[in-house]
Order: sequence, then C-alpha cells, then structure tokens
Amino acid sequence: MSKPLILVTNDDGIVAPGIRALVEVATQLGEVVVVAPDSPQSGKGHAITIHDPLRLKKVKPFPGIEAWECSGTPVDCVKLAKHVVLKERKIDLCVSGINHGSNASINIIYSGTLSAAMEASLEGIKSIGFSLLDFSFDADFSPAQPWVREIMQFALAQPFPHGNLLNVNIPTSPIKGVRICRQAEARWVEEFVEGRDPNGQPYYWLSGKFINDDTAPDSDVLALDEIYISVVPSMHDLTNYKAMTGLKPLETLNVRVDEG
Amino acid sequence: MSKPLILVTNDDGIVAPGIRALVEVATQLGEVVVVAPDSPQSGKGHAITIHDPLRLKKVKPFPGIEAWECSGTPVDCVKLAKHVVLKERKIDLCVSGINHGSNASINIIYSGTLSAAMEASLEGIKSIGFSLLDFSFDADFSPAQPWVREIMQFALAQPFPHGNLLNVNIPTSPIKGVRICRQAEARWVEEFVEGRDPNGQPYYWLSGKFINDDTAPDSDVLALDEIYISVVPSMHDLTNYKAMTGLKPLETLNVRVDEG
Repeated sequence: MSKPLILVTNDDGIVAPGIRALVEVATQLGEVVVVAPDSPQSGKGHAITIHDPLRLKKVKPFPGIEAWECSGTPVDCVKLAKHVVLKERKIDLCVSGINHGSNASINIIYSGTLSAAMEASLEGIKSIGFSLLDFSFDADFSPAQPWVREIMQFALAQPFPHGNLLNVNIPTSPIKGVRICRQAEARWVEEFVEGRDPNGQPYYWLSGKFINDDTAPDSDVLALDEIYISVVPSMHDLTNYKAMTGLKPLETLNVRVDEG
Repeated sequence: MSKPLILVTNDDGIVAPGIRALVEVATQLGEVVVVAPDSPQSGKGHAITIHDPLRLKKVKPFPGIEAWECSGTPVDCVKLAKHVVLKERKIDLCVSGINHGSNASINIIYSGTLSAAMEASLEGIKSIGFSLLDFSFDADFSPAQPWVREIMQFALAQPFPHGNLLNVNIPTSPIKGVRICRQAEARWVEEFVEGRDPNGQPYYWLSGKFINDDTAPDSDVLALDEIYISVVPSMHDLTNYKAMTGLKPLETLNVRVDEG
C-alpha cells in the first residue's frame, strides 16, 4: 500500500518552529508536502486573496520534503496546494499548525490555522488544526508530538462520516489525555491601545483579553484548564437551526412594488 | 422613546453604492453611525489586524450622518466602532452591506460583510448581513430597499432568543417574498489563472466557479433561484455535535512520557 499523502500548512509562516514539529510527525506517517505562508498570518481567519496575484516559491527548509512558500493567506495556501501544487492527486490528510497559541473556543473563527484546515475540509479532505497553548517562539513542541502522531494516525485509519474537521488544542505538559469537546462560549474583550505615530497621526492597535464564563464539563476550555487535549469536531454549516422557527413571521412580509 | 442606534458597515468600502443604499434605509429607522473600510475588503472573512496599527478617520460621505473610514478589515471596523467610536453606548442593531454580490451558502465564511455582522453578534448585538445578487458597481439597490427596511424593523421589534445573526440575500427584482432557509451545501471550485509578471516571475490569480448541487426546498440557494429573499439565521458555534460520538475512541489514547 502506498503511503498516505499529507498536506502540511500553518498560519505562523513556514519558518515557525510549530510547523517544523508538525512536519517531523507527518513524515513518520506518510508522504509530506508543505505549502505554507511566507510571512506570519495570524488572525487572518478565512480570508482569501481576490484582488492581487499570489506568489508560490519552492523552498527547502525541511530536508528531503517538498515545500512551497506562498505570499497569501493560509486559506490561499490550501487552495494553491490542491489546485496548483498537487493537482490531480488525492490528499489523505491536511494538518495545520502546530499553532503557537490556543485556538480553543471562539478563536476558531479568527484563526488562520483553523481556517486553512476548514478550507481543506470543504474540499472533502480530512483536516486537523493543531495548536499548543504556548505563544512563545521558544515553545517546546516535543511533549505534544507523540499525541499529535496518535491523533493523526486515528484520523488516517477511519472514515469521519459526520464531517472532516478537528480542532485540536494541546496544553503544555504534563498532558493527562484527550477529551472530545464542544467549543466553549468564550469571547474576546477588546482594548485598543491608542497612540500617535512619528508624524503625529493617531493610531489604534488591537489588544484584548480572552474571557471564558463557560465552564461546562464538555467545553474545550475546561478540558484544557484540566490539562487535557481538547478535540472539537467542527464544521462549516453556520446555520442556526434552532432560530428558524422564530423567524417564520418574516415569510409573511409583503412589500408593495410602489414602495420601491 | 429614543431612536434605536444602528451601526452600519460593509466590506466593499465606504464609497460603495451598496452601503449608501443601506444608510438611506437605516436613517428611516434610527440614529445611524457608519464605520466602514477605506478600501474594498471582499473575501477578508473574519480576518483581524493584529500586527499593524489601525487608522480611523471621520468622513462625510452621507449628509448629516456620523461616518468613519477605517484602514482595517470589516471585523476591525466593528471592533473599533464598539470600543472606540461608540464606547459606552448600546448598539441596537448592526447592519452590514448591502454587499455587491451573493453571500449565500458557503460564502458566509469568506465574506467580510457577514464576518462583520458575526463580530457584532459575538458582542451580543443583533446583526444582519445584506447582500444583493448583483456584483456590478451599477447594481440597482432600490427594489431591495423596502425589503431591507421591513427586515430591519422586524429585527428591531423583537428579541432573537436563539442567536443574533441573520444572513439575508436578495435577488434582483421582481422579488416574490421571503423564505427562512438553511445554508445550502454548495462550494467553490477553484481555477487559478497562471501568468508571468512584467519581470518574468510567475503568479497565480484566484478564480473559481460556484457549484451548488443542494436543491433541497429549505436551502438558501434554491430560494434565491426562485426569486425569494433568503434569510438564514447563522451562528458562531462551529461545533459538529453529530460527530462527537464517533470520536470517543480518541479519549482512550495514552501516550507514554518516554515517547516524547
């Protein structure tokens, strides 16, 4: 049997230590191709580049591994990987990360790491976003690596009938185990740092605090607080089915043409 | 009773005809404040600006209306609106758009228009993203305006107990009515246009086709095909609850420390 084809990407950029840790694991499990941003793309969410051309350049940061750096967003990387770099080939697994910092809870919608994985899942590819709860450049990814390998092996071994995407967050050690969770109802409270640039013009710089009041036993933030890896199966259908009934009165709206 | 406070934003930029059409409607219903991007931000998804300062400038494109243009993404605009422009004030409704082009189905995750509305909904603000199915700069928004007004009035008049966000797409006339829908399972099939720049370097430019095979009666794309306005209640919880049971075997994973 041929080795599975594993696409590796991230949002911290192709030179980040986190993607190196992920490539090391992936090479133990399959044939690896890396397509990752040429600069940090944190917080880029599901952004795509429409109004500008993209650059794609073959690079050799990982000995013996085919790797490309891309000028676009993480989602652009996945699109280019599938349609330009790997065209005609079936990708067995896409892994994104390992992100420097948490993507638990609501972070999934801001995260380039998770958006890249979601983009692959939209293409029918099993995808996992991995994040370590350590923002620092010097973060130690080695305790996470054997867990990452086990989770990737699990994903490669079986079908995921109800959706292709996992959001995996990993505490710094000692890791106690894995919990299947839902996204906690946490949020960011913004604080803009206001200042003046060297020309005297005002600027605003985004800052903020992550606030979590959702400590239900099945929430991802709680699992991480208790030093478990959180695995949240995630999806792209944002329909709020519960809200549909209450909106039915809108279907009786009628606007007379002469009002236009 | 004081007039409701309505925040207006978009992703096509503050000079787009679509936001002007939306401001015209909003001023009939409340006190309006506009905070919108100073340049087109289509496809920016839920991107936020972390690594650069943001600029915010008071402008007067709409007579008598407080308006600010922002150098950031649509989500940045909403964060700045709430925390810098309108701090301490309760926003009764956030409307984003009217987008030039559809944001039905999977477009919700790429769309700056909808991401802005979602950001407001994360802040507990009722939010509606409006989009017209006409990409052109010369699109005629006037047949849509009375429907936009009715939907905004509906939203202002009642609580939305199950979530704050509506994704409203509007066909070009003659509009038959409104349908409450779910997000269709459609997707984009990418095609990159490859070329060489004036310096002989290769580039790739994203293009693509929207493919919908989901024609169920409750899907938004079908409603639009049948010339109804689609209203999809949407949300930020991306947890795929159905997939949780099948992942339970992962909870038995155990990694020996000496493997690290």
